[in-house]
Amino acid sequence: MKLYDNSRAPNPRRVRIFLAEKRASIPTESLDLGAMQHKTDAFTALNPLQRLPTLVLDDGTVLTESVAICRYLEALHPEPPLFGSGALESAKVEMWNRRVEHHLYMPVSYVFRHLHPAMKELEATQVADWGEVNKPRVAQFLSLLDRELKDQPFIAGESFSIADITGLISVDFMKPAKLTVAEDLTHLRRWHAEVSARPSAKA
Amino acid sequence: MKLYDNSRAPNPRRVRIFLAEKRASIPTESLDLGAMQHKTDAFTALNPLQRLPTLVLDDGTVLTESVAICRYLEALHPEPPLFGSGALESAKVEMWNRRVEHHLYMPVSYVFRHLHPAMKELEATQVADWGEVNKPRVAQFLSLLDRELKDQPFIAGESFSIADITGLISVDFMKPAKLTVAEDLTHLRRWHAEVSARPSAKA
Repeated sequence: MKLYDNSRAPNPRRVRIFLAEKRASIPTESLDLGAMQHKTDAFTALNPLQRLPTLVLDDGTVLTESVAICRYLEALHPEPPLFGSGALESAKVEMWNRRVEHHLYMPVSYVFRHLHPAMKELEATQVADWGEVNKPRVAQFLSLLDRELKDQPFIAGESFSIADITGLISVDFMKPAKLTVAEDLTHLRRWHAEVSARPSAKA
Repeated sequence: MKLYDNSRAPNPRRVRIFLAEKRASIPTESLDLGAMQHKTDAFTALNPLQRLPTLVLDDGTVLTESVAICRYLEALHPEPPLFGSGALESAKVEMWNRRVEHHLYMPVSYVFRHLHPAMKELEATQVADWGEVNKPRVAQFLSLLDRELKDQPFIAGESFSIADITGLISVDFMKPAKLTVAEDLTHLRRWHAEVSARPSAKA
């Protein structure tokens, strides 16, 4: 098995944190996105969408999409469960992971990709207005999340899950996107300090 | 259990097709999006994100996000499996479902929401340039999908899965978005004709 990785992009970090929580590791090759190593013919043959992370299994099967890779790793290393246990908890983890992806990760990434000068080359067409539209969406969802985290330790409930990993990489992605977490979101800040203090957060 | 539904929006249709494939049904209430029934205080109390579909369980638990609802229904009605069987097949279904969501469904929905005159009121800020940027992305991903469907009957491989459901609602969503499937994508067209002919497609 081999994981194509990048130390600076948020999505590969999801898989690294996931592996660290499982106390598992796999051989890794880091690609330099600045040098466009994800756009070479060799890598495009593995993943025509030219994205990281990408996992290649020993039989040559290629898995892409962070959450698909994590779900495969969950089957290989079931403990601790990071996709929930049982029908209802698993559905809640799926719901919160997707809510965080659609209403936090993606808006933050649109702000970064469409407004950051450093992204001019990687993002073929920057649409500054689209970046601006997404700024208030980030703030709005963080308020919703703050209310949830008032009464529960983790995003999907009582247990740490992939939804917390997605939340962590999203909030940390706000820094390069030049977005800040409002001071008064005390529950969100408590949660962020706690998940950042886990050893896996350094992955 | 009660499903909040809408007969015209693509995401609620995913859940209806999923239920039809399972030969299952649940009591449903249809909300009128034009009349803003998803923005009432009563519905916002159920789903603060004001979206459909939304599933309310008998104990009052609320599940949102089409795929989270489908995953819960998969646990209640395991046959036929629509999220794959076994670690690798399940990961492939997750991968393809996400690829279709991110590279087809979302670009189509951005074209629709940011360019269609009828969406001016529902979409607070239309960014026409963002709609235009997404048009070639749709065409590009359909070509990739066409090459995959040359050698396999369904999007994730040998079996019909939720990835086909997401693909079907996405391709059908191209019509109101005023996008067309290129004539030469014969494998994609074969697949679309076949999944459209399944009784579930009428759901």
